[in-house]
Amino acid sequence: MNNTREDKVSNKIRPKVLFFDVNETLLDLTVVKKQVGKALGGREDLLPLWFTTMLQYSLVTSASGQYKPFGHIGAAALQMVAANQDITITENEARTIISESMGNLPAHPEVKEALKELRNSGYKLVAFTNSSKDGLKKQFESAGLTEYFDELLSVEETGKFKPFTDTYAWGAKKMGIQSEECMLIAAHGWDVAGALWAGWRAAFISRPGQQNYPLAPKTEIVASDLKKVVDILVNYS
Amino acid sequence: MNNTREDKVSNKIRPKVLFFDVNETLLDLTVVKKQVGKALGGREDLLPLWFTTMLQYSLVTSASGQYKPFGHIGAAALQMVAANQDITITENEARTIISESMGNLPAHPEVKEALKELRNSGYKLVAFTNSSKDGLKKQFESAGLTEYFDELLSVEETGKFKPFTDTYAWGAKKMGIQSEECMLIAAHGWDVAGALWAGWRAAFISRPGQQNYPLAPKTEIVASDLKKVVDILVNYS
Repeated sequence: MNNTREDKVSNKIRPKVLFFDVNETLLDLTVVKKQVGKALGGREDLLPLWFTTMLQYSLVTSASGQYKPFGHIGAAALQMVAANQDITITENEARTIISESMGNLPAHPEVKEALKELRNSGYKLVAFTNSSKDGLKKQFESAGLTEYFDELLSVEETGKFKPFTDTYAWGAKKMGIQSEECMLIAAHGWDVAGALWAGWRAAFISRPGQQNYPLAPKTEIVASDLKKVVDILVNYS
Repeated sequence: MNNTREDKVSNKIRPKVLFFDVNETLLDLTVVKKQVGKALGGREDLLPLWFTTMLQYSLVTSASGQYKPFGHIGAAALQMVAANQDITITENEARTIISESMGNLPAHPEVKEALKELRNSGYKLVAFTNSSKDGLKKQFESAGLTEYFDELLSVEETGKFKPFTDTYAWGAKKMGIQSEECMLIAAHGWDVAGALWAGWRAAFISRPGQQNYPLAPKTEIVASDLKKVVDILVNYS
């Protein structure tokens, strides 16, 4: 059975570019959990609600034809979640908390080795994030990931956030390739769903607390960390 | 001071149509909290995360150019939040829970009296929801709200969810009026933000657990329940 599966896998054609989501996919948000939890009066359990609210409001903003930096939306979401706990956080305080915590995240333990293996195997790697271009550069320098990537892309140039179809179309165009030649690697069901609906291929990293979107098309790779995704990708022909 | 404020208020011109959001704005979600909490192994504290995930994924779906019924998205969100608690809920189970709990909500205590006052004062009232048209009819029959409204509108006709600008434009067109002649009344910061960015006027009901979006334009009315919103609206000229 195992052989059969590996044979199938190795018959798949390599995507021309691998696009990586950044937060949670490559970078470990544990530090954010502590710092945001502290700002919320010790309620670290509210991190998923804050993160989901940030993502919701990024789409609220795009759906209304508006643009605000992703970090500012994250800060506004923090103010809202805090206010529901009767905690007042000013806009400046919130922006400082988000910028300091999101700007200094370590990579998940398996990430660097896995990225190196992909490069050695001949893949082209691109970071593809909702964070601002400046934020992304800062995050990658801090985590020591810059050297592994051919290109660092922030969707801020599109004026919309992932998973708007326009953002994936822009990413493909930016790399000079067709949608079907792109693969997104992400630990977020919404990102994988958006990529698949935009005609990309996708791999889902099922990190703790992350789920695929049940109403989306099936993802060709699902694995619990990046190393396991890479083990499959290096066997693509 | 009070007089001055009332004088100001009465100088405002009446919107031609008042559009009401439904869930949480008119209907009390306490029942849902209990039923969804039960499905999540007693974790009633996860209701805000489920509700926010449902809203996020409704926008994920629209942003990808797709459409799924709002209830199905709510069920998928419930499956995802449950899976993160190591609880497996099948698609059918989840849809039954959502349909039964969302379909039988009572109105908030002040709502009927407040709606009656608005009608007596000459206002035209329209329900305007992300729920399906059938779902809305069922909810209003169950809560006894149908008689207060001139029209029941579901955004399902647009193939997108609020707060996409297109949905508000469609609502205005459907009622044969201009954007600036519309007012949305809602207990959700994202809905009020979307309406304002679409050129509508808006009133925010600051029900417990609900916050205005700090990055949105200012809302002309903010009050803690519908009666207080109505006290202001009946003084508009």
